Amino acid sequence: MPSPSLSVRALEALPEVRPGDDLAALIVAANDGRPFAADDCVVVSHKVVSKAEGALVELAAVEVSERAAALAAELDKDPQLVQVVLDGTAEIVRARRGVLICRTHHGFVCANAGVDRSNVAEGWAVTLPADPDGSARRLRAALPGRPAVVIADSFGRAWRHGQAEIAIGCAGLRAMADERGATDRHGRQLEATVIATADHVASAADLMRQKASGQPAVVVGGLGGHVTAEDGPGATVLVRAAAEDLFGA
Amino acid sequence: MPSPSLSVRALEALPEVRPGDDLAALIVAANDGRPFAADDCVVVSHKVVSKAEGALVELAAVEVSERAAALAAELDKDPQLVQVVLDGTAEIVRARRGVLICRTHHGFVCANAGVDRSNVAEGWAVTLPADPDGSARRLRAALPGRPAVVIADSFGRAWRHGQAEIAIGCAGLRAMADERGATDRHGRQLEATVIATADHVASAADLMRQKASGQPAVVVGGLGGHVTAEDGPGATVLVRAAAEDLFGA
Repeated sequence: MPSPSLSVRALEALPEVRPGDDLAALIVAANDGRPFAADDCVVVSHKVVSKAEGALVELAAVEVSERAAALAAELDKDPQLVQVVLDGTAEIVRARRGVLICRTHHGFVCANAGVDRSNVAEGWAVTLPADPDGSARRLRAALPGRPAVVIADSFGRAWRHGQAEIAIGCAGLRAMADERGATDRHGRQLEATVIATADHVASAADLMRQKASGQPAVVVGGLGGHVTAEDGPGATVLVRAAAEDLFGA
Repeated sequence: MPSPSLSVRALEALPEVRPGDDLAALIVAANDGRPFAADDCVVVSHKVVSKAEGALVELAAVEVSERAAALAAELDKDPQLVQVVLDGTAEIVRARRGVLICRTHHGFVCANAGVDRSNVAEGWAVTLPADPDGSARRLRAALPGRPAVVIADSFGRAWRHGQAEIAIGCAGLRAMADERGATDRHGRQLEATVIATADHVASAADLMRQKASGQPAVVVGGLGGHVTAEDGPGATVLVRAAAEDLFGA
């Protein structure tokens, strides 16, 4: 009997996504019009979600506050970009030359509050979706077959080089698998086994995506019981509150 | 033309691994004796590697230092266990009731310096392999077909709930994919795109593993150019030096 197997495949490149575009329709077209399986998860780079939702800022039109100007000078960054970052920031976690780590209004801790100028037209920046779990729910409802949906972004880590892929939003996926009740073969309770499943799905998807060539959507198939009929609480459950972080008081 | 696709499948459960066991032979048997493909990566939970290498400690035989005794009392932890943790620790990053985050001698930052009592006989603890990249290279050399090898563990994150799967060792896999030279479709340089590929492979594997039922080995197939003929520098390249961490001076 073959073991159950997970599959991960990137969809064809999408055309450049513009505000108001029907992202679900573009994803279905990239899947040759076929519906998805009920235990598929469609993993989408947040950037196309932001673009479809109009979460774009023309930098030349940004009015720069005194605080942003001072911070930009200190860090050697573009003042307009720093203003957009501050608009998305609840708390600056770390600022030093070239580096600005922020806790966003959603509670994500990431560089530049997730504001990015790559894969966007010159002179513009793309910001994070305002409500990534809501975006995931809407996208799920619009995709034939109603697969789970993860909206992904790449975040740096405190103690490791390289960026890890993170689920900033999801629908229909158990974002965390809590195995703390389970016992091992010795009858001993498993220690510390709450697994960030949604982040693992995002990471698996990233292995097949060519970032430079416009392949923002990846289908992870065979997720079985990780996928749920209900949309569930989304990826918000993975956000550690500031007071609970591993450096908190 | 079907898109290239990644596959992830768990091997059958291994028997309980004991010091001196031939882990490669156990893994091959769990793969029904078949060789692996050259662009497969065999992802193995560190715990079976540690057990085969004898990285096990009988807690009753541990002599507890004054420092370990004081710390154990302060944190409400087992003194012998705390001693084993301190033996593997270069620096304590965070200590509070029930929580001990350590930088290991390898440079990994994780709870309890990776020392764990689950999936091990009562009264014993398993420690991290002394040289996980070396362990990965030896395992690769012993596996038919010479697939890439990742040795994985689950680490907590500073700002997110749930554990993420991490490559503590690897051989034959580009641990990081550096796309910083690449440009997007707008001709703009991609920002901050050094991707922790080995951690993503570990994460993908974890989606198919049942931790409680002894399935420590997972085969990730179809990794293509991520797999290299040379063993390469291993997962050490993913370790951020203490002085460079996002909280450093």
